Amino acid sequence: MSDNPSQYDGARVLADLTALRAIGAYKTGVHKPTFSEPHMRSLQWLAQRLPEAGLAATIDGIGNVLGTSTKSGPKLLAGSHLESQNYAGWLDGPLGVVYALEAARVINLDPNIHGAVEVASWCDEEGHFGSFLGSRSYVGGVTEADIDAARDRNSGRTMREALRDVGLAGRPRAKAECGRHIGYIEAHIEQGRTLESGDLKIGVVTSIVGIWQYRITFSGEQNHAGTTRMDVRKDAGLALARFCVEIDDRFPLACGRRTVWTTGRITLDPGAPSIIPGSAEMLFQMRDDDPRVIDRLDDLLHSMAAGVTAQGRCSVAVKRLRTGIPAIMDATFQDAIEAASAVFAGGRSIRMPSAAGHDAQVLATIMPAGMMFVPSIGGISHHWSENTDDADIVTGAEVFVEACRRLLAV
Amino acid sequence: MSDNPSQYDGARVLADLTALRAIGAYKTGVHKPTFSEPHMRSLQWLAQRLPEAGLAATIDGIGNVLGTSTKSGPKLLAGSHLESQNYAGWLDGPLGVVYALEAARVINLDPNIHGAVEVASWCDEEGHFGSFLGSRSYVGGVTEADIDAARDRNSGRTMREALRDVGLAGRPRAKAECGRHIGYIEAHIEQGRTLESGDLKIGVVTSIVGIWQYRITFSGEQNHAGTTRMDVRKDAGLALARFCVEIDDRFPLACGRRTVWTTGRITLDPGAPSIIPGSAEMLFQMRDDDPRVIDRLDDLLHSMAAGVTAQGRCSVAVKRLRTGIPAIMDATFQDAIEAASAVFAGGRSIRMPSAAGHDAQVLATIMPAGMMFVPSIGGISHHWSENTDDADIVTGAEVFVEACRRLLAV
Repeated sequence: MSDNPSQYDGARVLADLTALRAIGAYKTGVHKPTFSEPHMRSLQWLAQRLPEAGLAATIDGIGNVLGTSTKSGPKLLAGSHLESQNYAGWLDGPLGVVYALEAARVINLDPNIHGAVEVASWCDEEGHFGSFLGSRSYVGGVTEADIDAARDRNSGRTMREALRDVGLAGRPRAKAECGRHIGYIEAHIEQGRTLESGDLKIGVVTSIVGIWQYRITFSGEQNHAGTTRMDVRKDAGLALARFCVEIDDRFPLACGRRTVWTTGRITLDPGAPSIIPGSAEMLFQMRDDDPRVIDRLDDLLHSMAAGVTAQGRCSVAVKRLRTGIPAIMDATFQDAIEAASAVFAGGRSIRMPSAAGHDAQVLATIMPAGMMFVPSIGGISHHWSENTDDADIVTGAEVFVEACRRLLAV
Repeated sequence: MSDNPSQYDGARVLADLTALRAIGAYKTGVHKPTFSEPHMRSLQWLAQRLPEAGLAATIDGIGNVLGTSTKSGPKLLAGSHLESQNYAGWLDGPLGVVYALEAARVINLDPNIHGAVEVASWCDEEGHFGSFLGSRSYVGGVTEADIDAARDRNSGRTMREALRDVGLAGRPRAKAECGRHIGYIEAHIEQGRTLESGDLKIGVVTSIVGIWQYRITFSGEQNHAGTTRMDVRKDAGLALARFCVEIDDRFPLACGRRTVWTTGRITLDPGAPSIIPGSAEMLFQMRDDDPRVIDRLDDLLHSMAAGVTAQGRCSVAVKRLRTGIPAIMDATFQDAIEAASAVFAGGRSIRMPSAAGHDAQVLATIMPAGMMFVPSIGGISHHWSENTDDADIVTGAEVFVEACRRLLAV
């Protein structure tokens, strides 16, 4: 690594990512659910690094880490997240945080650069307790009642208990200061195959998909799996399976070019082999960057549910749990990332939408925002085998630092 | 209640059932999973009652309660079970145990009756840890290795741990003594609507269905629910839903007149809203009293699974967890129950198959066996609202005692 902290250093980026990978390691990935011990240790790690970049570190009352600068000139906010999905990849989140940290080190310590990069690690981007709770708290979109209601989707532990357990209860939550930042920039692994298949190094994000999420509940009649004849059954589990198949058959006729939808969890109640399920529940998600497409699919979902209920065997209730926040990335930010790619990635960049949700779409509701991607090997994501070539990580970091430099100079 | 213990007493039967209902009460039903505290208290309750019927009580190394008699003459074994499904009904099991207890009191204490009724409560008929483990142990069908491998289907606790926790580890397991009994008789609620809809009081069981159970596993590719395009997905959950629907479409063309099948539990892995399930599992069960029908459906299930695998998107593995033990009830036992119904139920009985599994089908593998049903209100079963009219309970008990008397006199 270089002795001059204000000089870009790819080896330093790799060393930081390796240090974070060692905290909560699982196979070649990590297991760091929000507010778990390895997640909290990762936040502490970041808070200890920030002073190297001339930043004062705080961990706020919802687990956001913020590094603030007293340097004069414009300020650019940069970051990502440090918790992971369960048993998932090492770069999803940490890559963007470490790029932000590197940009802050390079830029903030250089007296010839007017302005500074401030660093953020947003809590719970992976949605263990809710939807973008950390970044939404920062933009003023989370009430105390929202926090009261939030629960870990796996353990059922409340967010209040979790905050108390990790020692964050009672701390103030940091809020965006109006006019402080010229904008927000975030780097992330692509989580898809567009860059890899085109032998490209940088994705310049044009828009970020909105995520709409639903709980769909089927009510039938619980009964004995031996003595209840097939023709009189009201099997809520079977109604659910038929509904999944109907979605898969009908959505392609109504969706947009990039719409995706997923049933990620199914629960049959009571879940015993000798009992006909009396109720059943599925978590259903759909994504698009066009709210009109989603409106159409939302209507279709409700009309399908009404159709099943009208048949009289099982009733279906559709409850929207999460409303999407699709976002357009700022043109100036797109241009800066593309220009930086021309210098440090041989112009091997492409403008592309993001089909994954990111904190940048939340920040985009109050300031200009931009995002860039680096390639994912095999497009694998949300799995411990997720990975990116070291060379691509290093190239991406250099493009990111350069984009930050250009944005501060605009 | 009568002062003469050897006189049939319907009030005593209701009082005993009410006492058992109070142990582990849940709404109007009970929650007594195998080896839970209320289940163990119910076994103790029975062991304390048995001496009233001249029986020596033991609780054996798998949780069977047995009451043995030293009275001379033929011996008839009678019983059922005391654990319940989770949050289920108060009569499913206890009714048969209390009928057996009542028959033992009436018959064993009467010096004019040659022979005795011995009472059994078979452990885990409801299958929390396996399939008929208590009665199968008694007939010699459970090895120590089977017990080593058994686990609670909900908590995952091993049977060995459970036996240790309740103080039964190391006790010998009772085994059937060759030639000791003239046969086995069991009473149970019908768990269906045949008796109620025909205004009948007694079901004379002709055969008991066999239960075949499977774990069907779907393997696809876990990936990000946003960045993975619909056309390249290998969604194991969707493959499972389509398989459930295919079963429902194709089984009716191949099944028998009384075949039933049920998917009681579905698990998607990892079960998160933003992750395409990489694997998925269903517990599937089918029942029939004709093994040839099951052979046909077993073939169909395997060929459907091979068909899905051949399509190349997800692979399907079918594993049989449980093999059915269909049984024919002994003709002499059927006649005795019918004759007793003629005397004490005004002849309002019907010969019918049992679509539910019962310990009697296990006992039938080593001795003549018979079963009788009393009506279930609304046919509701395996739910806390399960119930039977008190008058029907009392009538059923009197028929049961009379049937036992007739069988000992044959």
